[in-house]
Amino acid sequence: MSEKKLGIAIIGLGGAVGTTMVAGIELLKKGVIGTEGLPLADFEGDLAKYENIVFAGWDLNEANLAEAATEHDVLSHKQFVNIEKELTNIKPWQSVGNKSFLANIEGENLITENSHRQTIERIKQNLQEFKEICDEAVVINLASTEKLVDEASETFANLENFEKALNENSNEISPAMLYAYASISENVPYGNFTPSVSADIPALIEFAEKNGVPIAGKDGKTGQTFIKTVLAPALKSRALKVDGWYSTNILGNRDGLALSNEDSLRSKVKTKASVLRNILGYEVEDHIVDIRYYKPRGDNKEAWDNIDVTGFLGQSMQIKVNFLCKDSILAAPLAIEIACCLDLAKQQGKSGIQEQLSVFFKLPITKENNPEHAFHRQEEMFLDWLK
Amino acid sequence: MSEKKLGIAIIGLGGAVGTTMVAGIELLKKGVIGTEGLPLADFEGDLAKYENIVFAGWDLNEANLAEAATEHDVLSHKQFVNIEKELTNIKPWQSVGNKSFLANIEGENLITENSHRQTIERIKQNLQEFKEICDEAVVINLASTEKLVDEASETFANLENFEKALNENSNEISPAMLYAYASISENVPYGNFTPSVSADIPALIEFAEKNGVPIAGKDGKTGQTFIKTVLAPALKSRALKVDGWYSTNILGNRDGLALSNEDSLRSKVKTKASVLRNILGYEVEDHIVDIRYYKPRGDNKEAWDNIDVTGFLGQSMQIKVNFLCKDSILAAPLAIEIACCLDLAKQQGKSGIQEQLSVFFKLPITKENNPEHAFHRQEEMFLDWLK
Amino acid sequence: MSEKKLGIAIIGLGGAVGTTMVAGIELLKKGVIGTEGLPLADFEGDLAKYENIVFAGWDLNEANLAEAATEHDVLSHKQFVNIEKELTNIKPWQSVGNKSFLANIEGENLITENSHRQTIERIKQNLQEFKEICDEAVVINLASTEKLVDEASETFANLENFEKALNENSNEISPAMLYAYASISENVPYGNFTPSVSADIPALIEFAEKNGVPIAGKDGKTGQTFIKTVLAPALKSRALKVDGWYSTNILGNRDGLALSNEDSLRSKVKTKASVLRNILGYEVEDHIVDIRYYKPRGDNKEAWDNIDVTGFLGQSMQIKVNFLCKDSILAAPLAIEIACCLDLAKQQGKSGIQEQLSVFFKLPITKENNPEHAFHRQEEMFLDWLK
Amino acid sequence: MSEKKLGIAIIGLGGAVGTTMVAGIELLKKGVIGTEGLPLADFEGDLAKYENIVFAGWDLNEANLAEAATEHDVLSHKQFVNIEKELTNIKPWQSVGNKSFLANIEGENLITENSHRQTIERIKQNLQEFKEICDEAVVINLASTEKLVDEASETFANLENFEKALNENSNEISPAMLYAYASISENVPYGNFTPSVSADIPALIEFAEKNGVPIAGKDGKTGQTFIKTVLAPALKSRALKVDGWYSTNILGNRDGLALSNEDSLRSKVKTKASVLRNILGYEVEDHIVDIRYYKPRGDNKEAWDNIDVTGFLGQSMQIKVNFLCKDSILAAPLAIEIACCLDLAKQQGKSGIQEQLSVFFKLPITKENNPEHAFHRQEEMFLDWLK
Repeated sequence: MSEKKLGIAIIGLGGAVGTTMVAGIELLKKGVIGTEGLPLADFEGDLAKYENIVFAGWDLNEANLAEAATEHDVLSHKQFVNIEKELTNIKPWQSVGNKSFLANIEGENLITENSHRQTIERIKQNLQEFKEICDEAVVINLASTEKLVDEASETFANLENFEKALNENSNEISPAMLYAYASISENVPYGNFTPSVSADIPALIEFAEKNGVPIAGKDGKTGQTFIKTVLAPALKSRALKVDGWYSTNILGNRDGLALSNEDSLRSKVKTKASVLRNILGYEVEDHIVDIRYYKPRGDNKEAWDNIDVTGFLGQSMQIKVNFLCKDSILAAPLAIEIACCLDLAKQQGKSGIQEQLSVFFKLPITKENNPEHAFHRQEEMFLDWLK
Repeated sequence: MSEKKLGIAIIGLGGAVGTTMVAGIELLKKGVIGTEGLPLADFEGDLAKYENIVFAGWDLNEANLAEAATEHDVLSHKQFVNIEKELTNIKPWQSVGNKSFLANIEGENLITENSHRQTIERIKQNLQEFKEICDEAVVINLASTEKLVDEASETFANLENFEKALNENSNEISPAMLYAYASISENVPYGNFTPSVSADIPALIEFAEKNGVPIAGKDGKTGQTFIKTVLAPALKSRALKVDGWYSTNILGNRDGLALSNEDSLRSKVKTKASVLRNILGYEVEDHIVDIRYYKPRGDNKEAWDNIDVTGFLGQSMQIKVNFLCKDSILAAPLAIEIACCLDLAKQQGKSGIQEQLSVFFKLPITKENNPEHAFHRQEEMFLDWLK
Repeated sequence: MSEKKLGIAIIGLGGAVGTTMVAGIELLKKGVIGTEGLPLADFEGDLAKYENIVFAGWDLNEANLAEAATEHDVLSHKQFVNIEKELTNIKPWQSVGNKSFLANIEGENLITENSHRQTIERIKQNLQEFKEICDEAVVINLASTEKLVDEASETFANLENFEKALNENSNEISPAMLYAYASISENVPYGNFTPSVSADIPALIEFAEKNGVPIAGKDGKTGQTFIKTVLAPALKSRALKVDGWYSTNILGNRDGLALSNEDSLRSKVKTKASVLRNILGYEVEDHIVDIRYYKPRGDNKEAWDNIDVTGFLGQSMQIKVNFLCKDSILAAPLAIEIACCLDLAKQQGKSGIQEQLSVFFKLPITKENNPEHAFHRQEEMFLDWLK
Repeated sequence: MSEKKLGIAIIGLGGAVGTTMVAGIELLKKGVIGTEGLPLADFEGDLAKYENIVFAGWDLNEANLAEAATEHDVLSHKQFVNIEKELTNIKPWQSVGNKSFLANIEGENLITENSHRQTIERIKQNLQEFKEICDEAVVINLASTEKLVDEASETFANLENFEKALNENSNEISPAMLYAYASISENVPYGNFTPSVSADIPALIEFAEKNGVPIAGKDGKTGQTFIKTVLAPALKSRALKVDGWYSTNILGNRDGLALSNEDSLRSKVKTKASVLRNILGYEVEDHIVDIRYYKPRGDNKEAWDNIDVTGFLGQSMQIKVNFLCKDSILAAPLAIEIACCLDLAKQQGKSGIQEQLSVFFKLPITKENNPEHAFHRQEEMFLDWLK
């Protein structure tokens, strides 16, 4: 592994996943936790070492990461005490807030520039300063899910239109797009762990290719969809016809609160629903995905899936999967690995969409519109690249 | 596909899986069911056509298959009525019974020869007569699980020892071995869908290679282990450490009754337990497999798995899988495909262990002692062969 | 038990519950099924005998009950064949249809009178003719859930206002209210097994008391709420604090389709939600009830509950209940018992709300606004009355 | 409530339940936890106040309670730190060890007297010293489950035989009986929270009545059986016939380890199985209870129940309950309440079996052999007594 210092700039740094990433790396540096959950821990190649990672980022909330970690309550008490000092020292930069894209979340730590262009300059400035203290930088988007936008809009169709819309302060342009634009401008790889529309619009893909910047996304594949894309290919292999797949989720963290807003939920559910047709090769008539904000769980998340299948003699059977997972515990290590892989891709001179990272995402961005969703085939693609 | 008539001779013909195989093929011939559950339904190659399959076989119970189907209650009433005549016409041959290998099951339809050699002759005679009415034949073992035998015994170490033990009517030799020996003698491929020790002993592998007969086994991978070998590789891919895996099964059919005998259960559980270490690369400290005979379910089977994993920051999560399946509905189509594949292998001039069929088995027989258990890698091996 | 003939007139006769009621009684008459599911089967008192029950009723669909039963697919094939003739002979009367109260359901078997008063006359005429062939009659409402109405409306506040609104053909008055009004006019007890607002408005309670007619309701307590009202009192008894209760349902019958209409769903969910506060004595902050139309299940219904509780030392635990039930199989026998009990109440000279039947309902109608929801206390009240 | 100091002497003080009782009371004294899990917290009567409870007891392990609590890992880190000093100050008395009754558990903190009579004297001496620092004392048995004994033995049939067997150092007499005998001798009420045979033998019931000492037991009803005795009466009320009930448990604490010994398990399972027949009034043909030692859970316990029921038309349905509970969190507050109630019973001058405490036990000891198992009827009996 390389000895260089890798800086990860996180959009939504103070969220549960962001603080868990930072906490995890600090605890790894101190040798008090193992590498469970980190798929590339044993990879022998040119990835940045975990101990050489440093963090910064933006958040709507100005709390330092010790305060944020206390609120999210993901760390054990002993873990918290161990790294309290390090967490206290990290304070988020001011963040882009836009009520029309993210209604339910409050925040006071706002960039108050008057135009898109000025906002982008602020973000670029943050990245320039960050790059002074690290050898390479990557931006990872972990912000709460934004409202669904009209991806087919002409505004997003090519870089020229997008630049024009930036100049005109178009209200079609979301915060997530501003961050992606700024990252690409700064030649910093960009990974989108959220379902929000951002670097996946044609305009920004074009920009990334032009600037030689690797991008990847979107929507980290952590819990229910991970299991879904593992099971569905196997059901197909056994010729078990899927008649219905009912998936419900309950979660109580800030992400859950954002999703209790109808518009954000629609964006999330859309992402989740697209995988089955791709894997099975037919439309599942009843594929229902529900997400409910449910406070008692906090950052712990629970998914319940019920799958109805038809087998031999036309007879029906059922599979039920109940996943009691922890959102940030699953997401944080994947977000770290995505950052390391984007950095590796940049070293290799790659630019634009990094399709080989599909294994990490619910809705992989692809050049042609045919993402692979089956987990084991995504993994094969990924391992082929790593070799 | 080939137009030749394929004969499948089933050990345990009148059991739930055997009658379901026969019923399914008859219903397919009449076009009243689809091909759900049959993984090779759309395969374009030299496999026997489903409509060209005919059945015969042995059973401890002399009931014809209509009587057997009524007892097992797997078919819907309409399906039963549709093929009652065809089922009535099939009566099992007399079967080898041996209380020291199979204690719980009663039966009156017994071969009463005095020696192993005479018993083998009877089985061979059955096969010879069967081959007169079909172009090719395959034997599939679906009999209830026999008592665990000492596989390391010198008796089984090579063909010479085994022949000698046959001559001496050794009580180490089980019914399943007699059937396998007779099949191989008759140049008929042999597939073992049960966990019983049979063609997987060195002596019979040697015999199969010498005679140019393909063999495959063992223990059909239908329900819980199927799901286990699908999920476990994915957990490893995400670096989620498996701390414990508790698997329990309830089932109420004749197989369940056989398993309520401690010796047969031990044989079954041993098979089930070996997969995790192979897939994960480490020993799961608490891997528990329980099987309980539970009458209310009849042929329906229910598996409940609880998996404890450790992820990032050393934090634990749980996955629970509840599979409400139907034993015969899952098993019958796989047993049909195994027969077709063994027939194909014979056409290709293959002999001995057909490792490429591992995807169908809980405990794949392999030349060297390193079976692949991960479902998607087994499938890849299988698809490579089919191409 | 009494020897008199009891006639049950069902609103929604051709629905899954209605046909199952009729089929069950016919099968009981023939002695081919037992009395499972009928709580009062062993009661020794003046209840009508099951064998002396006859049926009639209204439905939007003109199909006879054999056709209806085929569509609902609740009976086994053998059961269906056994009573096909009896079912064929029962054809529903024309029914009141009103798109503004029930949007998703189509039907052609409609009463086409021009006014509320004329519609009521038609219903009364049906009942008069029915009473000619039986000694006593009861009306049971099993129609699909209507849109939520404004129960606090002045229109419903007393009989006088209601009569006036009838005269004016007020569009506040729902079909369910017209049936209830007609039943009470005819001196026929009325039981509401649905969540629709009907005899529970003050105007009709007043009418029932005035006419000496027993009424009961509402919303049959069959699956998830039954379990909820059994478990919740026990959690309270153990001082386990309920922090959240997430209940989701999937079902694929005509009721499910009706509920996929937002307005009907709201009516249903409201009923379901009110029980916890009553039983526990405090508001459960996260009590979520979801119902989803999910075709693969047909009449089979599945409920999944997740309960988060806090126990000693403030530590949290979880209880999950997965009920794989059959809507009509649970509902039909309760609807039969309700009819028998209403008939008994009439014999006893009771009138108005029959609160002692609360054990059968999700939202018991009560004189004062304090329904008892705990199942075992409802049962005690019920058994006290029966004695 | 009374102001007197109540001393609870615990057999198995250093176990998970014992340390949780002590810790809970200490945390209540400091006001840092609420009264969740304590059913009598709001009872206004003559029960001892929680803050006036003091603890002592016996354990095979000499570790102080801070050490014990660290091993059991039930307390949160903050809770532990808060009461570390108090816990450190409590050290268990030497305990009676007998390998023939409790095989799997090691311990060094042993009473090494040569005879039953001398052992009893030691226990009495412990109690005498304890009573010097409190106003009243109660003994609660929380020791690991002993091997099943022959309850019908003549030795246990009356006090005279038992006294004689004590004199002869009979090896039929278990440690649990010695503790019970000593408590009763000392006029100290005795509650048995374990399934071990102890004060429930006729000899000791006779002794308790003679000495005017209240006794109660046995086997605390905490998790799966609690739920079972809540659900089963309701299924009966709805005339749902129970065809099978499969209950499995996984747990990883010291109790689980003890139960991994076949003999202890048999004792436990026997207790669990007896409830259904009592509640339902018929024998459930397939009532299976499994308990498996499963380390990943530690003190957390998980129960999975599958219930098969037959309803109307003879159709079958399933209910599944998954209880993710915490053994000590459920047990500790009940053990505290039992102690308080036994003390109250003594104040009231009661002696012998306190049947009104059945609600706390899986196998209530009763005068005649007809224990009530239905939870809500047990509760009614209990509340009647409290009034």
